[in-house]
Amino acid sequence: MAAKMKAAIFVEKGRIVLDEKPIPDVGPQDALVRITTTTICGTDVHILKGEYPVEKRLTIGHEPVGIIEKLGSSVTGYHEGQRVIAGAITPSGHSYACLCGCGSQDGPGTRHGFKVAGGWKFGNTIDGCQAEYVLVKDAMANLSPIPDHLTDEEVLMCPDIMSTGFSGAERGNVRIGDTVVVFALGPIGLCAVAGAKLMGATRIIGVDTVPARMEAARKLGADHVVDFRAGDPVEQILALTDGRGVDVAIEALGTQSTFESSLKVLRPGGTLSSLGVYSSDLAIPLAAFGAGLGDYTIVSTLCPGGKERMRRLMEVCGSGRIDLKPLVTHRYKLDDIEAAYDLFANQRDGVLKIAITP
Amino acid sequence: MAAKMKAAIFVEKGRIVLDEKPIPDVGPQDALVRITTTTICGTDVHILKGEYPVEKRLTIGHEPVGIIEKLGSSVTGYHEGQRVIAGAITPSGHSYACLCGCGSQDGPGTRHGFKVAGGWKFGNTIDGCQAEYVLVKDAMANLSPIPDHLTDEEVLMCPDIMSTGFSGAERGNVRIGDTVVVFALGPIGLCAVAGAKLMGATRIIGVDTVPARMEAARKLGADHVVDFRAGDPVEQILALTDGRGVDVAIEALGTQSTFESSLKVLRPGGTLSSLGVYSSDLAIPLAAFGAGLGDYTIVSTLCPGGKERMRRLMEVCGSGRIDLKPLVTHRYKLDDIEAAYDLFANQRDGVLKIAITP
Amino acid sequence: MAAKMKAAIFVEKGRIVLDEKPIPDVGPQDALVRITTTTICGTDVHILKGEYPVEKRLTIGHEPVGIIEKLGSSVTGYHEGQRVIAGAITPSGHSYACLCGCGSQDGPGTRHGFKVAGGWKFGNTIDGCQAEYVLVKDAMANLSPIPDHLTDEEVLMCPDIMSTGFSGAERGNVRIGDTVVVFALGPIGLCAVAGAKLMGATRIIGVDTVPARMEAARKLGADHVVDFRAGDPVEQILALTDGRGVDVAIEALGTQSTFESSLKVLRPGGTLSSLGVYSSDLAIPLAAFGAGLGDYTIVSTLCPGGKERMRRLMEVCGSGRIDLKPLVTHRYKLDDIEAAYDLFANQRDGVLKIAITP
Amino acid sequence: MAAKMKAAIFVEKGRIVLDEKPIPDVGPQDALVRITTTTICGTDVHILKGEYPVEKRLTIGHEPVGIIEKLGSSVTGYHEGQRVIAGAITPSGHSYACLCGCGSQDGPGTRHGFKVAGGWKFGNTIDGCQAEYVLVKDAMANLSPIPDHLTDEEVLMCPDIMSTGFSGAERGNVRIGDTVVVFALGPIGLCAVAGAKLMGATRIIGVDTVPARMEAARKLGADHVVDFRAGDPVEQILALTDGRGVDVAIEALGTQSTFESSLKVLRPGGTLSSLGVYSSDLAIPLAAFGAGLGDYTIVSTLCPGGKERMRRLMEVCGSGRIDLKPLVTHRYKLDDIEAAYDLFANQRDGVLKIAITP
Repeated sequence: MAAKMKAAIFVEKGRIVLDEKPIPDVGPQDALVRITTTTICGTDVHILKGEYPVEKRLTIGHEPVGIIEKLGSSVTGYHEGQRVIAGAITPSGHSYACLCGCGSQDGPGTRHGFKVAGGWKFGNTIDGCQAEYVLVKDAMANLSPIPDHLTDEEVLMCPDIMSTGFSGAERGNVRIGDTVVVFALGPIGLCAVAGAKLMGATRIIGVDTVPARMEAARKLGADHVVDFRAGDPVEQILALTDGRGVDVAIEALGTQSTFESSLKVLRPGGTLSSLGVYSSDLAIPLAAFGAGLGDYTIVSTLCPGGKERMRRLMEVCGSGRIDLKPLVTHRYKLDDIEAAYDLFANQRDGVLKIAITP
Repeated sequence: MAAKMKAAIFVEKGRIVLDEKPIPDVGPQDALVRITTTTICGTDVHILKGEYPVEKRLTIGHEPVGIIEKLGSSVTGYHEGQRVIAGAITPSGHSYACLCGCGSQDGPGTRHGFKVAGGWKFGNTIDGCQAEYVLVKDAMANLSPIPDHLTDEEVLMCPDIMSTGFSGAERGNVRIGDTVVVFALGPIGLCAVAGAKLMGATRIIGVDTVPARMEAARKLGADHVVDFRAGDPVEQILALTDGRGVDVAIEALGTQSTFESSLKVLRPGGTLSSLGVYSSDLAIPLAAFGAGLGDYTIVSTLCPGGKERMRRLMEVCGSGRIDLKPLVTHRYKLDDIEAAYDLFANQRDGVLKIAITP
Repeated sequence: MAAKMKAAIFVEKGRIVLDEKPIPDVGPQDALVRITTTTICGTDVHILKGEYPVEKRLTIGHEPVGIIEKLGSSVTGYHEGQRVIAGAITPSGHSYACLCGCGSQDGPGTRHGFKVAGGWKFGNTIDGCQAEYVLVKDAMANLSPIPDHLTDEEVLMCPDIMSTGFSGAERGNVRIGDTVVVFALGPIGLCAVAGAKLMGATRIIGVDTVPARMEAARKLGADHVVDFRAGDPVEQILALTDGRGVDVAIEALGTQSTFESSLKVLRPGGTLSSLGVYSSDLAIPLAAFGAGLGDYTIVSTLCPGGKERMRRLMEVCGSGRIDLKPLVTHRYKLDDIEAAYDLFANQRDGVLKIAITP
Repeated sequence: MAAKMKAAIFVEKGRIVLDEKPIPDVGPQDALVRITTTTICGTDVHILKGEYPVEKRLTIGHEPVGIIEKLGSSVTGYHEGQRVIAGAITPSGHSYACLCGCGSQDGPGTRHGFKVAGGWKFGNTIDGCQAEYVLVKDAMANLSPIPDHLTDEEVLMCPDIMSTGFSGAERGNVRIGDTVVVFALGPIGLCAVAGAKLMGATRIIGVDTVPARMEAARKLGADHVVDFRAGDPVEQILALTDGRGVDVAIEALGTQSTFESSLKVLRPGGTLSSLGVYSSDLAIPLAAFGAGLGDYTIVSTLCPGGKERMRRLMEVCGSGRIDLKPLVTHRYKLDDIEAAYDLFANQRDGVLKIAITP
């Protein structure tokens, strides 16, 4: 009889509960990782609310930090007992999508194809990591050893939040001397601020209304923070830039309002870098789009994954260039994850991210 | 008393007429060009119909081929009598927008700013070239000598149609082995087909319904042409690509339908390159956008200008790589331009482009 | 007792002979491919001459076309009996190098590192494909099914020659309207000509002295062919370009002379794209390098591999855009491969490439 | 009789002296700038020593900070009395080179051509700014207003040192998480360190032997500083990176030794970004170049100029992201410029940069 482990599973709309599941078997290219720290993502709340459909009894969670418990027979270059992380997105490494540099859209097998968000597997199409153990497929493409001098919490943002937030700046092609706006300063928006600063933006404007988030943005590199309740943020941003607009606008929420405002503050030739997950059709306002004549670029990005990405992000954590530790505002045991969901889903107590430890 | 010339001017909605205007004075950085051939653009028809506002009595036209009549006192490196073209877009060369590689969005003077489509001046903010003479400002940045072995008609597509159409492929970043679709096969869409072929696309799909345009697309490089009246073009294109979708979709019309279809046939991670001029807000359908998770890129592009761009396009004309001469289906005298507008605006007689000669 | 197969093995300097070796065992991620067609590369001649060291009794050859004989237990998405190719370079898909888009420099296991040319394994660090069977490791990243309408010979250039030659143009970032020179018109140089044409170069200059190669270059897209015995090729090229120089110079031989000449004909700001394998230190002449002030770019490229690359190249073969079949000038049975080496190493009888069939 | 001004002119090898010259006349596109602060560059020392030839009696200096004294009749968007800088490189804005984004290689007039370092005019092909006044040609492309809150000294590094040093990182395409080495920590190397940090490098290694420079490098972002006298720097750097090598190596001196070492510490697929001005042919060692198989990129860059570049660099100065003021170690009056040259040419007293004020 298979050994059991605790896991946070989706039961039905409104209910993610801690239950028991068998510890997974380990195939030749897999690794079984004992989770030492993980966290809850905004996407998990969408799942909880039934806004994003997953199979019943799926284990939720896609931000694993842990220790290799068992390696598949074909996996080389790692050892059991090694501390590792894996990205929220786990590209296979061998799909057509991966081989054209698009691993987040990892399509199946040998089909020439791609699958929207197909690289996002944990807590979506396979069991995730809000559990005592998680099975990491294509382990050699995805496991990234944690440098000894970094704690679990110091690398906890790498699998998703940092990777996504930074990609907002990267895909926006932020350059030295750019003016950048970030709409919405949740954990991803805050990492987008940090990413824009890391890439050389010299004027960064954050937009939110929650004081703690606005304050965190300032610490991570925002030169100005605009409170959208204090007046039309588009007008505020245009005033801050003497009417010129911004070079890059990063959307980090997923609403019509933030998307549209991003375009309205963008200078002709600028880039709107969209990170949000949307829940309805989007409208592109004609004037803000220059009727098609404005040389605008709109990019949308799903969190990049894979072990090289994780390695680079941990380099950032270790470099002291930015300090993301304050993003972890709360700590819960896995046994109390239902309470953690309750706190996080309701955004109580100034919560940014919660460290969950089995 | 200033000498007079004939010019096609906008009088009011529905009326562009041939009238007399003074031949312009030549400032230090200007050149006066005697037009030998020009043409009418779809945009001019929008002006004619009052859909795009310009000042009354403005001379229309932005595709000049001619001979230098007089050079400003500061202009060096050219000589009077030289055959030249200038782009539809005439960047100053010295604005902030120009200096960051964005001359089509050329902002005024020393402001740090940009102006949507500010580089489009001829027949928009200054007198254009459907006239006996046109004044070219910032002549040294814009006049491009015509190689002797090329006729006026052979280079007539360079100022706008080729530059715009090719930019659809260039900004779409077409790569060797790509599958590319072009929605709408008017002159710009046809040049987008040619541009995609020039850049190495190996499967090019055109979409239209007019037999002459579909036939022209095949000659310019389309491997498949889909008639959108013969069934849902999205389904036809997905069938042609075994469900994989296209790497790059070029929109060359400016409607919700073509924009939306472009996104629907795009593989995750692909690029929608929009060339159309739109007349209302655009909707991005949620599913086609992968809810923001599809790593899509949407770029809009205004015709690139400047003498280096023109030089390169004339190199293409001279290289024999593609033959755009069949795009000129009709020829009119400037004296008969009102009839030419009538033909072109009503798309009679299989018209693609009309050569106008004073 | 293991079944045996014929294989061309390196015995010692000057001797590659046909011998018997065991048919390899198939591991979980491997595929055993029965070779139906392969070829000999210039690199193999370097091995033959002892200029490039490999282990004794290694099977030579890195351009496999064949049929899947047996799939490893973990390989999905293929079926036995399927016609496939694999690239000369076989990235694992899961190394750090692969995951940062640099699979040709595929480093070992989980080391963060890279290994110069580490992705080149066939006939270099593992047994190659001048044999009845070849074992393809990391099969899911490397096997690319051959479309039914393409013959073995039509895809025989994909694994190395096309991939390398095209990469010369791709890494040179050839753009529409560029002037490109290709130094040395062997099979790789000829494919560089084809690649430059595919990417939109409008003036392509080839340099060689062998009439058959010069003629082949014209057919593949060279607008001019310079015979370096008819005068200093640098002077000839500068004369052809009115002294301006070329935008991209592709070096396809691997000598000081061609490298140096490539730089000398390059306009400031241009790119020297080096494909050759060199055998001694290179000198960069001070003046040609503008003393460091010329904004030059020099790139060297090893043949890109992986199944997506192969898929794209086969798309080119099937598109009719270019016809590389004339590159196969001779055909030999595997049993006669020693004679084939003799012909090829001595460049007799106008040989370009030899199809070898077991 | 023309009014006179003081200017530092090149007389003969070994002699740059302060003398009188006429204040220049102002043409239509020119601006006369009254210099308030300037500096001496290493290149000026090369001129002094006769290592770089310029015409006798040329005014030296290419780093102007000043006040507009008089504007040409065609210049708009500025006003006399305005504080401005111009770059060391002054692209015309209207050459073919400028219009293809290569203004540092600005060729003459309408020739299609480029000229090596043709954009460097001040103190090279026209009178420079170590004088009371300097004439800025193509003023609208080059004059960049100084924000009020920045002092002369705060922007004094923009025209050359910052622009060059940063370009080392920019052309090296430094990415978040990169390891970067900078060889030689003079003012340009120090700015390369700052540029690499601004772009997100998380491990920066500087190489020098002068304690003050090594200390300055640490302050500007170097995580490690290697003393090349303390052991082979290649070995030290490989040890620091666990044998992996660096992603980007920036050469900031112009010698065979630093060039060669840059290549030797570079990982396969990495970029060598060369900033130095060389004085003899360079050798590329075969092994370090992977015999041509290493996917290496070597870029050389001349200081980018133009008003948009200057605007961006002043944004950096104003942002507080880095503090370059400590680079100004000495201050001299223009009247004492001969003494300043003496100090600077002999690198006495820990000199980095000298502010010269008329």
